[in-house]
Amino acid sequence: MQHIKETLQQGLNDFIKSNSGNPKELYEPINYSLSLGGKRLRPILLMQVCEAFGGDIQTALPAALGIEVFHNFTLLHDDIMDNAPLRRNKPTVHEKWNSNIAILSGDTMFVKAYQLVLQTKHPKIIELLALFSKTAIEVCEGQQLDMNFETIPNASINDYIRMIELKTAVLLAASLKMGSIIANASDNDAESMYEFGRNVGIAFQLQDDILDVFGSQENFGKMVGGDIACNKKTYLLLKSIELANPKQQMELSHWLSYKDENIIPKIEGVKEIYRQLDIRKHAEQKMQDYLELALVYLNKSSLNSESKLMLQAFADELMVRVN
Amino acid sequence: MQHIKETLQQGLNDFIKSNSGNPKELYEPINYSLSLGGKRLRPILLMQVCEAFGGDIQTALPAALGIEVFHNFTLLHDDIMDNAPLRRNKPTVHEKWNSNIAILSGDTMFVKAYQLVLQTKHPKIIELLALFSKTAIEVCEGQQLDMNFETIPNASINDYIRMIELKTAVLLAASLKMGSIIANASDNDAESMYEFGRNVGIAFQLQDDILDVFGSQENFGKMVGGDIACNKKTYLLLKSIELANPKQQMELSHWLSYKDENIIPKIEGVKEIYRQLDIRKHAEQKMQDYLELALVYLNKSSLNSESKLMLQAFADELMVRVN
Repeated sequence: MQHIKETLQQGLNDFIKSNSGNPKELYEPINYSLSLGGKRLRPILLMQVCEAFGGDIQTALPAALGIEVFHNFTLLHDDIMDNAPLRRNKPTVHEKWNSNIAILSGDTMFVKAYQLVLQTKHPKIIELLALFSKTAIEVCEGQQLDMNFETIPNASINDYIRMIELKTAVLLAASLKMGSIIANASDNDAESMYEFGRNVGIAFQLQDDILDVFGSQENFGKMVGGDIACNKKTYLLLKSIELANPKQQMELSHWLSYKDENIIPKIEGVKEIYRQLDIRKHAEQKMQDYLELALVYLNKSSLNSESKLMLQAFADELMVRVN
Repeated sequence: MQHIKETLQQGLNDFIKSNSGNPKELYEPINYSLSLGGKRLRPILLMQVCEAFGGDIQTALPAALGIEVFHNFTLLHDDIMDNAPLRRNKPTVHEKWNSNIAILSGDTMFVKAYQLVLQTKHPKIIELLALFSKTAIEVCEGQQLDMNFETIPNASINDYIRMIELKTAVLLAASLKMGSIIANASDNDAESMYEFGRNVGIAFQLQDDILDVFGSQENFGKMVGGDIACNKKTYLLLKSIELANPKQQMELSHWLSYKDENIIPKIEGVKEIYRQLDIRKHAEQKMQDYLELALVYLNKSSLNSESKLMLQAFADELMVRVN
């Protein structure tokens, strides 16, 4: 695991060093974005799975870097669209420079991601690029669905799951599948890894929704209650709309149209309804369902038990922030 | 020629028909952009050159479509950055929808362009994708240089030529090279076609600068004098700054800081200085230099004389709007 992290970090450093030139307005924001940190989950997983199937992590490195650069490109453009001032506690690119530079350096970053994946020396390079492209389109669809979601009147839980699947889960799934393909895993194994990643990804987003309400600042790293404050239609809110009795419906409506600057009563009020409806348990159950489904796919694969345990540990670790 | 136009139009129609799905906010702007028309220069040339080197235009079609979709993606994002209200006399995507939709449908369109190029059935597909990627980066660099250009104090003519080379010429060049590669032309021929396209592309942009000042509304299709009105640092302005005597320098400075709403005196004033300095002749000479260089590369190629004449006719036709 440590050797994978080191190889990835070296690759990222080399990429950043090579990614210079004129005009600097195009290249500095790319390197800035990539230097903000992050867990590097997707590229690490891609390389781990590649190794688990007997592949060479050096062969997998360009695709792993491509996935990480692509992921950070989507954050860069999403931050413009969401008008977000901060990313990992630092100014976003459109704040630090401006929107035009953020659009164009993002576009450049997207090409760089393709160039990295293109460097993969593998007979199935076209399949890798096709999967990468299909996934990129899905991530765009997920972002658009997310933006639409806040304005549609009757969002269903299924709509929500589909949105987070596209916005978050498919890139994790594609990372695992690309690592498998590079290791020459069988089609069945590559598909099992995709489904493992897709289900873990959905569980991970549900976990994020739970932590936003019930986590502590310390283990969440973001402002607790942020989703409630901005009426974000998460699984928790949608499930409580489904389960609420008429009195609770009225209370929810009250808080959803609450305009006072002091947001604390709203956060506490909505949390109280969540408690009455046992929403945390419902959300954790849903998350658990996806995790179990993920493990079904993991166990379908031909990986040895050590590798299965490693991937199961990864999934558990993702979820460890629940307390 | 007619069969190429028809094949391309059929391909575009098929692409637009297949390009549907949810969320519609992502797909409608793409089809809208592609339906605004345009001369389809780049894909037509790609297919023409492919045929000239004995290749099959059906094999070249996906790459030709990819180039056209990419070109329209750059226009879509450029229009956000330039805050342009109209494109081909129709509202731009960010005006008709909004900036967020324009950013994200543009990103999606970019992936679609890659997906089209990826469909090319050719042993050199990786080389095609690498050229496409390199060119995409250069077009982004050109757009950034163009945005920077308006604010740097001492822009040189060389800077200007480099900017239009990246923003306009390299995509024409890459189209010709891709058509050659798909037809299995030799490396020398593919490179000659690239240089032919690059030089024609620079000449074409110089021509556009000339027409913006000296053309008629009728044969230009845009507002004549627009570049003068917004102090655009074209070849004509930069050359006149170079050649002006102290009195003309002062007059130019006056017009460049002119703020009156009635823009006619400014346009006439700057045109008068251009006339005194014979700027049109200088610009036409520069354009001619690039055209001649283009023909040197064309003649270096192993194309038969009929094909050479066809490509020369194309270059002449591009320039025909001078009168």
